[in-house]
Amino acid sequence: MEMDNDILKRFGQRIAEVRKQQGYSQEKLALESGLARSYMSSVERGQRNISLLNIYKIAETLRVSPITFFEPE
Amino acid sequence: MEMDNDILKRFGQRIAEVRKQQGYSQEKLALESGLARSYMSSVERGQRNISLLNIYKIAETLRVSPITFFEPE
Repeated sequence: MEMDNDILKRFGQRIAEVRKQQGYSQEKLALESGLARSYMSSVERGQRNISLLNIYKIAETLRVSPITFFEPE
Repeated sequence: MEMDNDILKRFGQRIAEVRKQQGYSQEKLALESGLARSYMSSVERGQRNISLLNIYKIAETLRVSPITFFEPE
């Protein structure tokens, strides 16, 4: 089984990649998604087991499908 | 913004659909994923905000990509 830490790290990296592609700072993404910046930062570092609804909030802010975060660049 | 309840319900329905396609009972899926059956049941009914790692556990048990749960049938 894939290690949990690897899953979270890869997912956080993908969020960071898509965020940058869409021209968002971490702060702007957090603010527009209604999430704490410290939370956003720890998600991108793979230190949080993000929930489905927060995945959707971030995807909606970045105007992408949630699926984008599961796919390699 | 799409309502949270709608997101959770649709996601739970997709898990139930894929589970049945793969020939799993709810009990078997819960057991093999290391999740409580009551939790599995409430996820399928859209009553839980499932976490990323549990999405992966369920997908791995059913031998599908986690993306499958985000797509319409």
